[in-house]
Amino acid sequence: MQHAKPLPTYLAQRFHGWKATSYAENAAWYRRLSSEGQHPRAMVISCCDSRVHVTSIFGADTGEFFIHRNIANLVPPYLPDGQQHGTSAAVEYAVTALKVAHVIVMGHSGCGGVKGCLDMCSGNAPHLEEKSSFVGRWMDILRPGYERVKDQEEDRRAALLEREAVVVSLENLMTFPFVRSAVEAGDMSLHGLWHEIGGGALECYDPRTGGFVAV
Amino acid sequence: MQHAKPLPTYLAQRFHGWKATSYAENAAWYRRLSSEGQHPRAMVISCCDSRVHVTSIFGADTGEFFIHRNIANLVPPYLPDGQQHGTSAAVEYAVTALKVAHVIVMGHSGCGGVKGCLDMCSGNAPHLEEKSSFVGRWMDILRPGYERVKDQEEDRRAALLEREAVVVSLENLMTFPFVRSAVEAGDMSLHGLWHEIGGGALECYDPRTGGFVAV
Amino acid sequence: MQHAKPLPTYLAQRFHGWKATSYAENAAWYRRLSSEGQHPRAMVISCCDSRVHVTSIFGADTGEFFIHRNIANLVPPYLPDGQQHGTSAAVEYAVTALKVAHVIVMGHSGCGGVKGCLDMCSGNAPHLEEKSSFVGRWMDILRPGYERVKDQEEDRRAALLEREAVVVSLENLMTFPFVRSAVEAGDMSLHGLWHEIGGGALECYDPRTGGFVAV
Amino acid sequence: MQHAKPLPTYLAQRFHGWKATSYAENAAWYRRLSSEGQHPRAMVISCCDSRVHVTSIFGADTGEFFIHRNIANLVPPYLPDGQQHGTSAAVEYAVTALKVAHVIVMGHSGCGGVKGCLDMCSGNAPHLEEKSSFVGRWMDILRPGYERVKDQEEDRRAALLEREAVVVSLENLMTFPFVRSAVEAGDMSLHGLWHEIGGGALECYDPRTGGFVAV
Repeated sequence: MQHAKPLPTYLAQRFHGWKATSYAENAAWYRRLSSEGQHPRAMVISCCDSRVHVTSIFGADTGEFFIHRNIANLVPPYLPDGQQHGTSAAVEYAVTALKVAHVIVMGHSGCGGVKGCLDMCSGNAPHLEEKSSFVGRWMDILRPGYERVKDQEEDRRAALLEREAVVVSLENLMTFPFVRSAVEAGDMSLHGLWHEIGGGALECYDPRTGGFVAV
Repeated sequence: MQHAKPLPTYLAQRFHGWKATSYAENAAWYRRLSSEGQHPRAMVISCCDSRVHVTSIFGADTGEFFIHRNIANLVPPYLPDGQQHGTSAAVEYAVTALKVAHVIVMGHSGCGGVKGCLDMCSGNAPHLEEKSSFVGRWMDILRPGYERVKDQEEDRRAALLEREAVVVSLENLMTFPFVRSAVEAGDMSLHGLWHEIGGGALECYDPRTGGFVAV
Repeated sequence: MQHAKPLPTYLAQRFHGWKATSYAENAAWYRRLSSEGQHPRAMVISCCDSRVHVTSIFGADTGEFFIHRNIANLVPPYLPDGQQHGTSAAVEYAVTALKVAHVIVMGHSGCGGVKGCLDMCSGNAPHLEEKSSFVGRWMDILRPGYERVKDQEEDRRAALLEREAVVVSLENLMTFPFVRSAVEAGDMSLHGLWHEIGGGALECYDPRTGGFVAV
Repeated sequence: MQHAKPLPTYLAQRFHGWKATSYAENAAWYRRLSSEGQHPRAMVISCCDSRVHVTSIFGADTGEFFIHRNIANLVPPYLPDGQQHGTSAAVEYAVTALKVAHVIVMGHSGCGGVKGCLDMCSGNAPHLEEKSSFVGRWMDILRPGYERVKDQEEDRRAALLEREAVVVSLENLMTFPFVRSAVEAGDMSLHGLWHEIGGGALECYDPRTGGFVAV
């Protein structure tokens, strides 16, 4: 692999700063994490978006959350077809190997993936409809959510579809046999969140109303 | 989705603590991130493992890294077959929409996914070879790496294969036309890292030697 | 003391979160607790085990319970020999200085200390029998309880001995003159509980039957 | 044990409330804690005082801290004499069996035990000097700290001695061979804190200056 480059200097400098401070002060904890392996209590599925730091929001220490991040925090339906499904692999590992107690799906405001889905489904982004568009095909997962928001006022649709990305993922999670059995046995619980970046708000999906309420 | 539960109380309390401190102190920045959208300078591809906090290691602020996390920080080869490829979608979005300057793949010590791959390829994990194993099929991506380490001493293989997970991903990244053209045009650079959790070490892939050297 | 380290960052952050929320909202109460001193209505003796949160289970507010926690929630017999007895000191302070109305001893399922006692008394943990084993010598307090369960079925012994840890402690409490006189004067009552962690159950010692019944 | 009474009704009611809410919402986590056993990352040694809730201050979830609470958060010196040492047993279990990464000793303002020690050492509490006083003999542990504060202004002595209770305990912790070796190997770190109840402040022991600084 001849194309790789050295780490940019500013990142190398920051690493050395971390090593001399945070690492040094917590070396005992890092060593134990290394020797004992991880025992995270929850899996979090959130977006790749650079503005979403779930560990900050929840004051999580190293070792606390098993975190999968993809475009628009989506979980596809269960499809054991022998193909590569990275999200399904992460869910399978968290539930069957790590036996996490919670799976938390967290959406967020201003999601670029959700915006693309909205544009695509309303006919305004033909490039996303092409077979070769990885983003477009990935956002197909959210089409059932689009059907539920397409008749809403136009300026509310994006925020509603961001919440649907959470609901659709929760629904799809329940199509995985090992998720369903763990949930039904009471060994694991699912949680849906939506985070508003600018105002720092957090809403939680309420299964009784089907809506989201402030935490 | 009737199965979702409210957020566990301790997480709700911690969120309120974050809101009243970190958020309150940086509200102007969060608002600007919200109104201007994200402009991350780098994409990081790392593992879901709860012990790997790339934002800590690099002192990254909100908005700095676009982060995709999957099992064993793997990138599959370019395969525009119209199917759902979450990792490829994340790479496509980072490179073509966000136009990040760097793509950093970071592996780590004690990786459960890599361990599974090693067991599977050496015939010791038949359940991972089943068509229905999402983890097994996902780890198929790393089979070319296994071929390169299988003749090494047994107790060194896992750590070597963790580094191969980085190299294979860098190789696969170059099979994406939009990655190759950005790299060849000098608009983007690729970087490979391996992080040792217990000792807090960081190694960088060196294309001249094909090995990893301490940062 | 040159070996102390700064507080881990994640705990410092959480503290600041608590200060800005829970503390800020209840500052008047904390100030009053500070100026008036404590007037707890009960003393609770429970285990150090990280899974046992008596304040959660009983929704206890700050200032409500005087809580002593040791391995296996044990109270040794009254022994005024001039040596250091931390548990006896806590009981003496609660009863004679704070004049609590209740002393509650709460055992729990999966107790590591009780498990150690069982292993030791049945000859399977020679290291716990050594003079230098603090855990072993501490668990000697529970030897009378072992005598009462040793002939029970093997797989029931641990849970029975956990309950005996409560009964033995209640018996030992009554050997303290100031406890006995307060109880006999009707100024204070003793209570024995056993908490099952996984199922969230709570059982109370019933002196009429000598057994435990669901609360 | 004929003297035990049923659980006071108000506590039984609160338990049922907890069971129907907090427990029900987190049943999966409690079940996992039960089946996997505890893996606390830190041991906390704090006072029995009802106004000190370390789990609140640090937003700790069930399973996070192994907590020993005694009068004045004291650790006696290492003394393997075959007698019962509850605090030493708790330290031994946390360090050798649970292998915690941190031991945190937390003192607090308005500590009744420390006040008693001050009175006793300055000749104003003859009853605490009696051989039969468990509190007096327990507070003997803090006599080396009294020597270091006795010449300070009278109205500052109590708060200084509260901090000495932390320092003396940290010093005594290092007399335990298994503590010293874990600290020296970098596998565990010690931390000293002092909490001011009325103002909600938290100070951390700084080994460079020998004093306490605001967190």
